[in-house]
Amino acid sequence: MRIIGVDPGIAITGYGIIEYRGNKFNVIDYGAITTESKLPFPKRLKIVYDNLYNILLEYKPEAFAIEELFFNKNVKTAIKIGQARGVEILAAANYGIDIYEYTPLQVKQGVVGYGRAQKRQVQEMVKMMLNLKEIPKPDDVADALAVAICHAHSGKFKDMFKME
Amino acid sequence: MRIIGVDPGIAITGYGIIEYRGNKFNVIDYGAITTESKLPFPKRLKIVYDNLYNILLEYKPEAFAIEELFFNKNVKTAIKIGQARGVEILAAANYGIDIYEYTPLQVKQGVVGYGRAQKRQVQEMVKMMLNLKEIPKPDDVADALAVAICHAHSGKFKDMFKME
Repeated sequence: MRIIGVDPGIAITGYGIIEYRGNKFNVIDYGAITTESKLPFPKRLKIVYDNLYNILLEYKPEAFAIEELFFNKNVKTAIKIGQARGVEILAAANYGIDIYEYTPLQVKQGVVGYGRAQKRQVQEMVKMMLNLKEIPKPDDVADALAVAICHAHSGKFKDMFKME
Repeated sequence: MRIIGVDPGIAITGYGIIEYRGNKFNVIDYGAITTESKLPFPKRLKIVYDNLYNILLEYKPEAFAIEELFFNKNVKTAIKIGQARGVEILAAANYGIDIYEYTPLQVKQGVVGYGRAQKRQVQEMVKMMLNLKEIPKPDDVADALAVAICHAHSGKFKDMFKME
């Protein structure tokens, strides 16, 4: 199964495409869609949407896994990133693919095995599982790959995480 | 100038299209895009985007004015509505039109003349200015028309409200 993982954002959207067959991972590609803060916000949303849609067209994943947003305090930031996540989900819906979402806790659980793992542990696990030489940078890219791994590991439970 | 006003939402997105020439208003159309809560969220985002984009194609407004989201407490709701607002702005960006945003306070100021006006006063003013028989229902539609009127009234100051 080919999976795209996405760490939502407006300045930086991490993405990672992996293959998962017979408990083995194969990395297809990963990277970040970035937009400059000096651009008008609608233009930034358009860049995020267009780039992500083109990535879907190019790599033809069979599942789209995106991290849930989690903010304690800053409602303004939540709305800003929420808008970006909206166009990211729309890109997947327009491409026509099953969409899954995982909380940061579920991602840690699904990658490292327990929900209180440190960020660094998750990143090391991503590197190891995907047989990479380095931890991908920036963090958003490693996070996106972690979401994709988490989805691969959700196995028969994946319908629990399908966006409803 | 032909203006579309939008009150962002996921269950209900209000919209209103007005003409403003020589200090006179003319209503072109108004209504609500609704999505059922039982539908998967990505599908709901797609319905909002597709409908709004088609409304732009049909009515060819020259300016797009959208209300800013304002939440005090509920971050979860803020993220949800934020995602819908994201695809609404994307629809305008993809259609290719100038996009303006106004806070609820600015809308009251721009329609009634002072920022502490009651909701009902704004609605009555919308009805009167647009020469409508009734206050449009639901509230989201009246709000969308209020945003459009607010933009019409922003006159030479409109660049202050352009989305950057």
